[in-house]
Amino acid sequence: MEKKTTSESHTILTELVLPNDTNMINNLMGGKLMYLMDVIGAVTAQKHTGRLCVTASVDNVSFKKTIPLGSIVTLEARVTRAFNTSLEVFIEVYAENIPNRIGKYKANEAFATFVAVDDMGTPVQIPAVEPETIKDKQMYESALQRRKLRLLFSGKKGEEKKTELNSFITKL
Amino acid sequence: MEKKTTSESHTILTELVLPNDTNMINNLMGGKLMYLMDVIGAVTAQKHTGRLCVTASVDNVSFKKTIPLGSIVTLEARVTRAFNTSLEVFIEVYAENIPNRIGKYKANEAFATFVAVDDMGTPVQIPAVEPETIKDKQMYESALQRRKLRLLFSGKKGEEKKTELNSFITKL
Amino acid sequence: MEKKTTSESHTILTELVLPNDTNMINNLMGGKLMYLMDVIGAVTAQKHTGRLCVTASVDNVSFKKTIPLGSIVTLEARVTRAFNTSLEVFIEVYAENIPNRIGKYKANEAFATFVAVDDMGTPVQIPAVEPETIKDKQMYESALQRRKLRLLFSGKKGEEKKTELNSFITKL
Amino acid sequence: MEKKTTSESHTILTELVLPNDTNMINNLMGGKLMYLMDVIGAVTAQKHTGRLCVTASVDNVSFKKTIPLGSIVTLEARVTRAFNTSLEVFIEVYAENIPNRIGKYKANEAFATFVAVDDMGTPVQIPAVEPETIKDKQMYESALQRRKLRLLFSGKKGEEKKTELNSFITKL
Amino acid sequence: MEKKTTSESHTILTELVLPNDTNMINNLMGGKLMYLMDVIGAVTAQKHTGRLCVTASVDNVSFKKTIPLGSIVTLEARVTRAFNTSLEVFIEVYAENIPNRIGKYKANEAFATFVAVDDMGTPVQIPAVEPETIKDKQMYESALQRRKLRLLFSGKKGEEKKTELNSFITKL
Amino acid sequence: MEKKTTSESHTILTELVLPNDTNMINNLMGGKLMYLMDVIGAVTAQKHTGRLCVTASVDNVSFKKTIPLGSIVTLEARVTRAFNTSLEVFIEVYAENIPNRIGKYKANEAFATFVAVDDMGTPVQIPAVEPETIKDKQMYESALQRRKLRLLFSGKKGEEKKTELNSFITKL
Repeated sequence: MEKKTTSESHTILTELVLPNDTNMINNLMGGKLMYLMDVIGAVTAQKHTGRLCVTASVDNVSFKKTIPLGSIVTLEARVTRAFNTSLEVFIEVYAENIPNRIGKYKANEAFATFVAVDDMGTPVQIPAVEPETIKDKQMYESALQRRKLRLLFSGKKGEEKKTELNSFITKL
Repeated sequence: MEKKTTSESHTILTELVLPNDTNMINNLMGGKLMYLMDVIGAVTAQKHTGRLCVTASVDNVSFKKTIPLGSIVTLEARVTRAFNTSLEVFIEVYAENIPNRIGKYKANEAFATFVAVDDMGTPVQIPAVEPETIKDKQMYESALQRRKLRLLFSGKKGEEKKTELNSFITKL
Repeated sequence: MEKKTTSESHTILTELVLPNDTNMINNLMGGKLMYLMDVIGAVTAQKHTGRLCVTASVDNVSFKKTIPLGSIVTLEARVTRAFNTSLEVFIEVYAENIPNRIGKYKANEAFATFVAVDDMGTPVQIPAVEPETIKDKQMYESALQRRKLRLLFSGKKGEEKKTELNSFITKL
Repeated sequence: MEKKTTSESHTILTELVLPNDTNMINNLMGGKLMYLMDVIGAVTAQKHTGRLCVTASVDNVSFKKTIPLGSIVTLEARVTRAFNTSLEVFIEVYAENIPNRIGKYKANEAFATFVAVDDMGTPVQIPAVEPETIKDKQMYESALQRRKLRLLFSGKKGEEKKTELNSFITKL
Repeated sequence: MEKKTTSESHTILTELVLPNDTNMINNLMGGKLMYLMDVIGAVTAQKHTGRLCVTASVDNVSFKKTIPLGSIVTLEARVTRAFNTSLEVFIEVYAENIPNRIGKYKANEAFATFVAVDDMGTPVQIPAVEPETIKDKQMYESALQRRKLRLLFSGKKGEEKKTELNSFITKL
Repeated sequence: MEKKTTSESHTILTELVLPNDTNMINNLMGGKLMYLMDVIGAVTAQKHTGRLCVTASVDNVSFKKTIPLGSIVTLEARVTRAFNTSLEVFIEVYAENIPNRIGKYKANEAFATFVAVDDMGTPVQIPAVEPETIKDKQMYESALQRRKLRLLFSGKKGEEKKTELNSFITKL
């Protein structure tokens, strides 16, 4: 199965923040942003794998910067690394609010993993990722560490190792 | 500021999975579920604090069980612990599909944190949590560990400690 | 066919009032509330019958209390009585508006009936209701009266009886 | 305050039944239809009164005919009679399904009442209805009876009369 | 195949302008209006042809008058002329804003063409149009000119004629 | 007022085709696509002008290629030329359907014009466009011709010239 570069599946999604997407102080709700992150992640994963892809996990998402009503939200997503039947996608969120003269700023970022499936929902083999830029290569390398952490937390590395990790965290 | 029990803000949200919420193999999309998790989390946080609450973070979410079209999805949320101006909410997702005779099962769970704000969006003090049941008390205790981990990952405990954690994870 | 208690199918639905759900003076539109009542009623009926259920009728609904934008709306529904292939559901609507410091109040209530159907849409037999609390038992009893009224108004008891009823009402 | 004829505010609303509006056997959900009935009723009331109008009540609605996915739904609404600050609207629902070659049929009808309000939500005086056709005049006359029934059921005519009505119904 | 009159498929669609349909200065977005134009056009075409109809083209649409939030929008559509497997629909848009005391005005109009298709999406023969009123007859006549222009612009009349047209326009 | 290049406001919008966006033969409805075209056009215009922009017109849109349910739709928009207070945007639509193994193809394209406005909705002066590539320059040049045609059709060049154009078209 041939490799694919990161840029082949790079995806951009632009959306206007409409009233129903905002809370009572007129900022984009976290849940709506996570919905968009999931859509762009799934599209990016589809493009890389040439398969329908379903969400396997979303890593910790922090909401540091608010995004007011009427903003233009731009999400960018790229595949960082593929494993056997799953792959990791890195999603960045940018916002700008032209009526309020707020220039473009980075609002958010997250990692999510997707699994490629056939029509029955059974996981299928997927192409490896060929990282191109230095940043691509760094993310490709660090993907292993993030994957390990996901496996630790989900208990797939054994409950013992999870406990070991927790006690280490307590001491930090 | 008086304490509030966990049960005072306990919230239940029921929703039918409609066609637009599903992917091409007719299962609920992860992004839609995260949207619902955020709504119920924000409502629960509002009830505990008596204030508008905005999403601060959502911890790692795994999507282990699929939820097919036409299912009844039931989300339950409870506050586990309040800190200065923020609080942690624990969200559980259950599903059942009556037309397909699939009984109720647990599909998912996640922790999210919310910040209570005034009309200007400025964080405000909130009541402490009074845990009642044994499970409440366990979650109250473990909330500190989860908070520590969030601070470590977001770099708020210092980059050095983040690096220390990462190298520990690598060795596990 | 075994009986089921009222509490087995008791359902709660929580929703935030968003801008698109409100009229020009920022209160929840009646039509949106009826939509939610129908969803929770259908879910409750599904849970009791273990079957897909379709709306047969909704009794008179009064909109006495307004529910402003940003409110938390909580609907609670319980089955009151089952007949041959249909059942009656009682739906209560509560609202609270935390940003505006309006505590929880009862906004509304309604009775609706649903019919359990198979995949072809043909009505099927359903379990009887086992009322538990005193309130459950009262509603179980009064369900017959409400059913009679529905049959009278829809002309299923004969046009003669409908006329008799109308002339009685005129004299009241 | 001048009178207005029924035809001056007569309103037609056409909608295609889309996937998200249907249940698991692909028929329009009752709640979605009630949502549309409320929208057309409010528009008709606005046109007659020249004021914002809010839903006061919806009388018993029966769902006798199913409306399959892809149907064209046509709602027609006319004001039947105005009272002091409120008015009654009669809503008829027609459906046809061209891809399935099902010709136009009447699916449903309902009466709803609306209250005209100012910007503060305070009820305001409204124009009387000038019925034109024979049907208009019949509905204008029978509106009093329906109003009486609504007042009886909501207890506004006194609990005593409500009880009297109930015992009469039992005997029918 | 028998002819059908224009009035047989005449369609009216009424909609309230809700917050999510408006831009940051609270006017209906052009894209939402084009969405509604397409829905009413497709319904009108279905009614005339007794077939599922898909959009073939929409002629130039100008947005001259704004339509503010809370307005009642009324779209009216009529078939002007049928060709082999396609037909032209004329769509007019009216608006009025009762809370703001803005009377009914014409906001917009457009021509669109639709193709009647069978279940496989293959174009099928459709009935001719029998124009009734003088206006109907004028539109029936001028439909040929509009069709010619569409063919010229889409290059279906040959690139040469398209160039000839363009050079004529330049000189005007 | 400084010029801006075409690439500075170039915008990409990606969307998954969901069930509610499709007609009864499971293809994207024209109206939904025009809605997306309007959104991306308005965003692109905002980025170029640094102002809120409202839709002024959309040129003839042809729907030649169908876009099936589950497709990834990618819209790309670029400013071609700015006039006094308005500007022309060129929008291209691409689609691919990965579950059905249909590779990326161009489905559609359109020109739309937008007007930059202040908070009162009054048109404001906007920056000129600096075309970069050969394609940019060709579109910049041909924009005058398209503008002339829009003015001719809308009667802004005088009814006489409109008639002259129409009689020329008839002879072609």
